Amino acid sequence: MTTFAVFGTGSVGQCLAGRLSDLGNSVMVGTRNVADTMARTEKDMYGNPPYAEWLKNHPRVMTGTFKEAASKSDIIVNCTMGHASIDALQSAGAANLNGKVLIDIANPLDFSGGFPPSLLICNTDSLGERIQQEFPELNVVKTLNTMNAWLMVNPALVPGNHTVFVSGNETTAKTIVKGILNSFGWEETNIMDLGDISTARGTEMLLPLWVRLYGALQNPMFNFHINIAGKNQF
Amino acid sequence: MTTFAVFGTGSVGQCLAGRLSDLGNSVMVGTRNVADTMARTEKDMYGNPPYAEWLKNHPRVMTGTFKEAASKSDIIVNCTMGHASIDALQSAGAANLNGKVLIDIANPLDFSGGFPPSLLICNTDSLGERIQQEFPELNVVKTLNTMNAWLMVNPALVPGNHTVFVSGNETTAKTIVKGILNSFGWEETNIMDLGDISTARGTEMLLPLWVRLYGALQNPMFNFHINIAGKNQF
Repeated sequence: MTTFAVFGTGSVGQCLAGRLSDLGNSVMVGTRNVADTMARTEKDMYGNPPYAEWLKNHPRVMTGTFKEAASKSDIIVNCTMGHASIDALQSAGAANLNGKVLIDIANPLDFSGGFPPSLLICNTDSLGERIQQEFPELNVVKTLNTMNAWLMVNPALVPGNHTVFVSGNETTAKTIVKGILNSFGWEETNIMDLGDISTARGTEMLLPLWVRLYGALQNPMFNFHINIAGKNQF
Repeated sequence: MTTFAVFGTGSVGQCLAGRLSDLGNSVMVGTRNVADTMARTEKDMYGNPPYAEWLKNHPRVMTGTFKEAASKSDIIVNCTMGHASIDALQSAGAANLNGKVLIDIANPLDFSGGFPPSLLICNTDSLGERIQQEFPELNVVKTLNTMNAWLMVNPALVPGNHTVFVSGNETTAKTIVKGILNSFGWEETNIMDLGDISTARGTEMLLPLWVRLYGALQNPMFNFHINIAGKNQF
């Protein structure tokens, strides 16, 4: 049994924490202030239930501060909003992060100009790289950030083969993360390792296309598949 | 028979001009200085032949300045490098562009930091939008910029269904461009209209992922396909 800290109480955190718990892992969700989180009664902007309501259906999931969750965990999953990710990790404390694997799902979305969002960081940098730079002893693996939260933990929601990208500096950490992706239902051939953490620029910069596809399709349940010609086909 | 001006003499310009000519259209390739272009003897960075050598196998294709090509054309295809596109269009002259359709294939790639490139414009703006703003009477349609040049004009080079995106403010212009895409072999169901020209931000920002996929796959002959869940499937 692996012990996970899932940072973030929104729909991404709920999907990840619920699925990891259902798979038999020990899960503590981390949040800034537990009492504040539990007191919330409004749905989020997508109509998802508040955390306390969600938790009633997931009694095995524990809740704590970022620091409590990180200190007890083997693996941390960053499902916070991108603008708040580094603060959340700092409040967990480097000592509770060092040497561990961080699965970074956050995107540095900027909604200050309305919808569709732009990015707070991009092009010559990425949130994944910023986190890796801020915590050099943490093994950051960027993945799952290019799709809807429900699809992350249940790829069969979209028919056929489609792709999840993985970026990170440490091969061992990426191998661990690929195993977790397998446990969610991602087949080996649909997991594409792009290389080191700087390749997170590519996947974070997919978000501006994602939001426009969402607008055009009026349906969030889609994903990208990479069709490749055989080397002898051209 | 439609008359095309193809701006740019590199591999993208060659692929587009060759295919359009083979399909029976009248094509003039536009370049800054015809004598300079014809005098070049070196291959490009991808090993493609210099323009004059390519032209020997495409005797029906004409060559002229940007202005000559634009003045004779119904439709302009921008295959210049992104950093040079607005200059090229300015040298053609707004009077030779106004009221026409521009198929914008250029990406604002910045190779100043080496490979992989970053983007000169992104996030809150795009090259497609800049061109549209600079030439308000030109009907800019961004498309084909998310794939290898050979694939643009022959989608069957990659097996199965895969997607070409279209962005532009004018419905009639997009309908004309979709017809040209059909003539290249793109099926209706694989042409995805994202909306107005601001959606070009999304497709231009796909390039950082494209170059990293190229690095991971060591194969430029791939494309994105969007797999979508039926509305009743989730």
